[in-house]
Amino acid sequence: MSVIRHRNRYPYPSQRITCCSIHSDAKLKDPFSLVQNDLQSLYEDIKKELFVSKAELKSLCDYYFDGKGKAFRPMIVVLMARACNVHSNKEGVLLPAQRSIAMISEMIHTASLVHDDVIDDSDRRRGKHTINQVWGERKAILAGDFILSVASMALARIGNNAVVSVLSQVIEDLVRGEFMQLGSKENENERFKHYLEKTFKKTASLIANSCKAVSILVNSDPEVHEIAYQYGRNVGIAFQLVDDVLDFTSCAKHLGKPSAADLKLGLATGPVLFACQQFPELHSMIMRRFSTDGDVDRAWHYVLKSDGVEQTNYLAQRYCQEAIRQISRLRPSTERDALIRLTEMVLSRDK
Amino acid sequence: MSVIRHRNRYPYPSQRITCCSIHSDAKLKDPFSLVQNDLQSLYEDIKKELFVSKAELKSLCDYYFDGKGKAFRPMIVVLMARACNVHSNKEGVLLPAQRSIAMISEMIHTASLVHDDVIDDSDRRRGKHTINQVWGERKAILAGDFILSVASMALARIGNNAVVSVLSQVIEDLVRGEFMQLGSKENENERFKHYLEKTFKKTASLIANSCKAVSILVNSDPEVHEIAYQYGRNVGIAFQLVDDVLDFTSCAKHLGKPSAADLKLGLATGPVLFACQQFPELHSMIMRRFSTDGDVDRAWHYVLKSDGVEQTNYLAQRYCQEAIRQISRLRPSTERDALIRLTEMVLSRDK
Repeated sequence: MSVIRHRNRYPYPSQRITCCSIHSDAKLKDPFSLVQNDLQSLYEDIKKELFVSKAELKSLCDYYFDGKGKAFRPMIVVLMARACNVHSNKEGVLLPAQRSIAMISEMIHTASLVHDDVIDDSDRRRGKHTINQVWGERKAILAGDFILSVASMALARIGNNAVVSVLSQVIEDLVRGEFMQLGSKENENERFKHYLEKTFKKTASLIANSCKAVSILVNSDPEVHEIAYQYGRNVGIAFQLVDDVLDFTSCAKHLGKPSAADLKLGLATGPVLFACQQFPELHSMIMRRFSTDGDVDRAWHYVLKSDGVEQTNYLAQRYCQEAIRQISRLRPSTERDALIRLTEMVLSRDK
Repeated sequence: MSVIRHRNRYPYPSQRITCCSIHSDAKLKDPFSLVQNDLQSLYEDIKKELFVSKAELKSLCDYYFDGKGKAFRPMIVVLMARACNVHSNKEGVLLPAQRSIAMISEMIHTASLVHDDVIDDSDRRRGKHTINQVWGERKAILAGDFILSVASMALARIGNNAVVSVLSQVIEDLVRGEFMQLGSKENENERFKHYLEKTFKKTASLIANSCKAVSILVNSDPEVHEIAYQYGRNVGIAFQLVDDVLDFTSCAKHLGKPSAADLKLGLATGPVLFACQQFPELHSMIMRRFSTDGDVDRAWHYVLKSDGVEQTNYLAQRYCQEAIRQISRLRPSTERDALIRLTEMVLSRDK
C-alpha cells in the first residue's frame, strides 16, 4: 500500500468507511459489550499474577490495572480468538490460553508504558500522575521490570513454543521501536518510512502478534494466522496514527496527557510530516527536534494551518480499510463483524 | 543459623575452612578449568540469542558479554548440573537445557546490573564505563529490558513449567531486593535481618534457584533439588558478603568500581553494621544514609578501625561451611568436589 501519495481530502474518515461486510444493524452489540464477560475479571486476574506481599511494590504494580483503562488490546485479542475459533469449528469457545494472551498483551503494554514514561520523563498518563512522577524514576524502572517478567512467565506457562516465539518478537519490536524514536535524524525521504516502521514496532506489533498467537492456539490454518496478524497490524497502525492526531487536536484533559506532547519530546509524527510537505519551513525544526525556543508553538500552528491532521486521519482510514479487507476473509461470525465495527471506533475515538 | 552472636575473630577465613569432603590434592583441577569446555562459547551463544540487526542496540547488548566477565554464575550452574547428573546416573552428561540455564542465569544477572546502574547512577562496572554512562540512561533502560526479555523467552523455550516457576521467583526477588535497598530506614534490631534478606534476594536467589533448576531438569530426587538450592543460597550470600567487604578493602582499580561505593549510595552493608556494634556513633549516620557532608569518610574510618571487615568475612565463612555441609550430601564426583573448593575461591577473591 503506497501511503503518502494520496492527498485526497475527506472531512472525517470514520463516516466514510463502507464495506460489504459491515452490518449497520443497530441491534448488533458493540465490541465492548460482546467481550464483557470474557474480560470481566481481567484486571483482577492480572493483579493476582502480579501478587507480591511487599505493600509498596504492590501499589505500583496495581496502579495502572485499576480497571479504568480502555482494555483495547484485550478486547481485540478476545474478539479475534472467538472469530478464529468459529473458523476452526469451535464456536462459542474461548480457550483459557487465549484469555491468558489477552492478559499478557495488556501486561506487556503496561510495562512498556511504565518504562516509556521514565524514558520520556512524562508526568501524566491516563488522566493521572505517572508512576515515575509519584514514586520516582528508580521504582518505576523496577515496577516495569517486574510486570514484564511476570508477563513473560505467564506466557511461558502456556507452554506453546510458537506462541512464545511470536510474542518474543513483540518485546524486541517494542525496544527497537523506542530506539528508533530516540535521536533519529533521518533525511526527508526516509522520514515517512521510518515513522511508519516505528509506529508498527511501538504499537502495532503487540496487537498483530497477539492476534496471531490466539489464532495459533486454536490450531487454525496458517492462512488464518496471517489474516489475524494482518488485521492486528493494520488496526494497530491506524490506532497509533489517530493517537498522533489526538495529540494535536484533543485537549489535555481528554487525552490524559498534555497536548503536543510529541512535539515537546522532539518527535515528528504523521500530522507534522504531512504539514512539512505544505510548509517546508517545518523541515529545519524537525531536524533540530523542535529544540529551539518557540519551535513547538510554531510547529503546532503550521500543523493546524495545514491539512496534516486530515491527511493522517485519511491514512488511518486506509489502514482500517485494509484491516477490514483482511478480516472479511474469515467465516462470518458475530465477533468477526465486531472486529470490523471496531475499526470505526478506532477512527472516531476522541481520547 | 544465628549469624550475629558470633564475634570470634579469625585472621582470614579462607584458610580456616576444614571439611572432611575437601580434597587438598594439588592435581585436582580448579573449578574454572573443569567447566572450560562447557562454557567455551557461552558468551557467543548469548550474543546469538540477543541477535538484532540494529547496530546500536546490538552494541549495547553485547557490551557486557565480552567474555571478560568471571562467568561465576554459569560456572556454578554447570558444575551443579554435572554433580546432580552423576547423582542421577548420568555421569559425564550436560543436558542442553542445563547449559541454557547457565546462559539464562548470566543474562538475568547482566540485565539486572544494567538497570541497577541506572537506578544507582553508577559510572563504572567491571573496569569499564557503564552502559548508562556511555549511551545514556534511556538506552540503558531499553537494553536491560531487551536482555531480560530474551532471557525469559529462552527460559520459556526449555518448556519445563517447574523450571520456569523457579526462575520466575528470581526475577521477583531481584526487584524486591532492589526495592528493599531503596529508602529503607529500619531500626537497629531489624537492620541485620533486613540486610541478609536483601542479600539473599539481590544475589543469592539467582544462584540458588539456577542450581535448583538444573537439578529439576535431570529429574533428580526432591532432596537433591533442596541440596542444590541450599548450596547456591549459602554460596550466594557468602559471595555478596565478600563483595561488601571488598567495597571497603579493595582499591577502585581492582574492583572495577569505586571503593566505598555502597556508603556513597547510602547503603549500610555488613562491615558497617558490625562496626556500629563497636562504635554506636555510626547509628545516626546509618539512619541518615550517610547524607551529611563528611559522613562517608567518617563511616569508612570507623569501619576500618572496627572489626567489621573481619566479622563480615567470618560470617561469609560460616555460610560457606553450610554450603559445603549441604553439597557433601551428594554422591562423590569431581564436580561436587569442585563446588566445595569453589567456596574457597569465593572467600579469597580480591576483586
